[in-house]
Amino acid sequence: MDRGLQDLRARLAEITDLNHAASVLSWDQMTYMPPGGAEARARQTAMLQRLAHEKATDPALGRLLDSLRPLENKLGYDSDDASLIRVARRNYDIVTKVPIEFAARMFLLQAESYEAWARARPKNDFKGVYPYLEKVMAYSREYSEFFPGYGHVMDPLISNFDYGVKARTIRKVFRELRAELVPLVRKIRDAEQVDDSCLHGKFPTDLQAKFNRLVAERMGYDFQRGRIDETPHPFTTNFSIGDVRITTRYHEDYLGAALFSTIHETGHALYEQGPDPALEGLLGTGAGMGIHESQSRLWENQVGRSMEFWKYFYPALRKAFPEKYKGVRLPDFYRAINRVEPSLIRVAADEVTYNLHIMIRFDLECALMEGKLSVKELPEAWNDRYLSDLGVSSKTYADGVMQDVHWFSAYIGYFQSYALGNLLSAQLYDAALKAKPAIRSEIATGKFSTLLGWLRKNVHRHGLKFTTDELLERCGVGGIEVGPFMDYLRKKYKGVYGL
Amino acid sequence: MDRGLQDLRARLAEITDLNHAASVLSWDQMTYMPPGGAEARARQTAMLQRLAHEKATDPALGRLLDSLRPLENKLGYDSDDASLIRVARRNYDIVTKVPIEFAARMFLLQAESYEAWARARPKNDFKGVYPYLEKVMAYSREYSEFFPGYGHVMDPLISNFDYGVKARTIRKVFRELRAELVPLVRKIRDAEQVDDSCLHGKFPTDLQAKFNRLVAERMGYDFQRGRIDETPHPFTTNFSIGDVRITTRYHEDYLGAALFSTIHETGHALYEQGPDPALEGLLGTGAGMGIHESQSRLWENQVGRSMEFWKYFYPALRKAFPEKYKGVRLPDFYRAINRVEPSLIRVAADEVTYNLHIMIRFDLECALMEGKLSVKELPEAWNDRYLSDLGVSSKTYADGVMQDVHWFSAYIGYFQSYALGNLLSAQLYDAALKAKPAIRSEIATGKFSTLLGWLRKNVHRHGLKFTTDELLERCGVGGIEVGPFMDYLRKKYKGVYGL
Repeated sequence: MDRGLQDLRARLAEITDLNHAASVLSWDQMTYMPPGGAEARARQTAMLQRLAHEKATDPALGRLLDSLRPLENKLGYDSDDASLIRVARRNYDIVTKVPIEFAARMFLLQAESYEAWARARPKNDFKGVYPYLEKVMAYSREYSEFFPGYGHVMDPLISNFDYGVKARTIRKVFRELRAELVPLVRKIRDAEQVDDSCLHGKFPTDLQAKFNRLVAERMGYDFQRGRIDETPHPFTTNFSIGDVRITTRYHEDYLGAALFSTIHETGHALYEQGPDPALEGLLGTGAGMGIHESQSRLWENQVGRSMEFWKYFYPALRKAFPEKYKGVRLPDFYRAINRVEPSLIRVAADEVTYNLHIMIRFDLECALMEGKLSVKELPEAWNDRYLSDLGVSSKTYADGVMQDVHWFSAYIGYFQSYALGNLLSAQLYDAALKAKPAIRSEIATGKFSTLLGWLRKNVHRHGLKFTTDELLERCGVGGIEVGPFMDYLRKKYKGVYGL
Repeated sequence: MDRGLQDLRARLAEITDLNHAASVLSWDQMTYMPPGGAEARARQTAMLQRLAHEKATDPALGRLLDSLRPLENKLGYDSDDASLIRVARRNYDIVTKVPIEFAARMFLLQAESYEAWARARPKNDFKGVYPYLEKVMAYSREYSEFFPGYGHVMDPLISNFDYGVKARTIRKVFRELRAELVPLVRKIRDAEQVDDSCLHGKFPTDLQAKFNRLVAERMGYDFQRGRIDETPHPFTTNFSIGDVRITTRYHEDYLGAALFSTIHETGHALYEQGPDPALEGLLGTGAGMGIHESQSRLWENQVGRSMEFWKYFYPALRKAFPEKYKGVRLPDFYRAINRVEPSLIRVAADEVTYNLHIMIRFDLECALMEGKLSVKELPEAWNDRYLSDLGVSSKTYADGVMQDVHWFSAYIGYFQSYALGNLLSAQLYDAALKAKPAIRSEIATGKFSTLLGWLRKNVHRHGLKFTTDELLERCGVGGIEVGPFMDYLRKKYKGVYGL
């Protein structure tokens, strides 16, 4: 192997391993760490991230990347090595544009702002987060200024989560989506509500865990390379292609919570377990957040809330909770898991209204960043949009503008990825069904391997070699579109709500 | 604070945190990691250890330590800051004496030799480990040569585990100990054997876990700063003073295994939870292995196998396993947990014969290192000593010379610390009882705080500020002695075996 390339691989592997080690420390913190470990753990995790950052901004790495240009040009664009050089250079260019002193201040603000939010939210105290949110916006604007020539002030921020995706594109897509979604939600509101009482009751945690495990395993989640633990906020994390873990949260009185969050996280995990092993430690993890979310939402909604999925799993669910389900017919269970109800809380939203929550956030974020909206005006603007788009309004900040951690962790430019994920889930599932028409009937018999195989081949195996756009192109999907998702919703909810 | 001192603290904290991060990765590997994570994990842990080693051998650290000499001399020997400089210099001097290239070869040998042992042991294949053991001995001799002027070729190796303790001292102590121990073991063998059938039967894991948790908690283990998990080989690890974890292993058919290993590891953990919080991240962990083992053995044997301990806990044990213990009187239970039986396996040995296992290993280790014994002659020498000291002989290598991982992990100079721990446990317990005569009667009522308080004040709070000898001096114990331990055994086993 080329000596420079060898050097590059060693440097990148070290950076990746430092970040993965930090992820192990974080996973432990969320799952098993005793409370007394918190103080030292924060210091230890920050230290690993700092070392990774030092190595990622090492000028020697920059010089090495320069020296590898001829090799990169010689290799094909899609080759692993050319992709490694290309992605490494992209990352290097981004992190070195941001002065280390600014990055350090940003880390600090993230921590302080998060703490202020965690303290203030239970007290419904918007004043307690107000100065932090102002700072977050100011810093985020300052961050974008390190990338002169951007089209929109949000673009450099969005690129941290969905590289290359532009605010202009998102706005166009969201305008179209909102125009089609709001009327559909109104129609559903006017229809007779679906009864979902069969999802409420008493569901012992151990029985739920056993059933969820069965579902994840049948979907294709490899427990030899993963595990499921319990945390207040479910998440997926990975320390290598061989160790991809998910967490879930059980509600003893509501079946839907753990079940669909497990399917959702399994969707993420299948992606992280899927890259070509040759990419391990280098490019072996998922692409942008929008693509990542497309995988979780595809499994959670397109598959996990479909009739064919439950044709297969409903007998097992009945066996797990015989008392509860002996009198419930499958079509009634299917309608229950697809109940739509406009509400205040994003994370509890159904698949129809979910995107409205996201678009509200994205639009307000843009307005704040553009300086067209002040943090002071934010709560009112929030409530206005909830009323107009969802027909609900919050009496508290905690259930309103303070409900999500993102802004208070200085994650600006993140929210859109949830909605992009929803749109892409429909586009990718359509592409899979077109290529392999038997997928739906196979799912009804518990066979998920054809679908997973298509995703592996077209999405998963590439790891983070390609940007969102490049990956979509290689899947034959083209750009982000509203049509497939809206067609899916209209067709499905015509049935569920008899529209 | 002095600028140089501040710099030193920052450098040492980073080294400590890197090592603690590596410990988190190891803990996870032993407890929850799925099998697929093994390959990347080995690489990640090694990377963290390598970074720690790089920082520990940084010439800038050496220069900094030189510049801190005047400050060190100005401060009192026992002050935290002087101790920090002193211990840091000692460690720096040791690690920089060993060429990095040699250290790297040693790491590699450790890994290869361990793997060879793990493969060969189940097949009882001594030939499979023979070349590795020869290499381990050659490397260990080479290691000692980096420390010219040593009194005995074992001294530099022993110092890695018990700093400053000399082979000559250990040999003298062991000679005396063996001379007194072998006759006692013979006497016990000739007496009527104790019936320990009450420890065998059916003990569901969850009930054992609950009872063990109760014991650990009453002893003073702080679960806000720790937790108990399950692993094949029990151990204690710490990531900070606020996060000290133990593991245990349950045998459903034998109560004694998990129970006494939990008490043993809790003894280690109480030590790690005990340093002055001002030492956190710097000197906040236990001193040498001998001292460490004295803490675990003090709790396991001096306390955990005493009549007063079970006066308090036996009712709770009876409640946990009512069927099993309704007909068993406390004195019979006490005798059962103090049954002595010469056997082949060190880790299963009782407190009387345990030191014989250790002395065999230490003596053979010395002979190998001195070149008076070859690896080829080792199995026969092993069996000869087992026959003469314990009256047993092994038909397999697996239960003989290949039973312990230490030599095959290139841990030469480690074994003695187990026996030193046993001797010191008696000396330290005597000192505690002398200072606080109520300890025994308090234990009978479930009060452990006076004993723990004495240990905290005299041993734990110092962390690794002092060497074994310095610490013993500060406990008013003087050097390592055989007398207190033998007095304890004679008195106790006179009762148990009616000698």
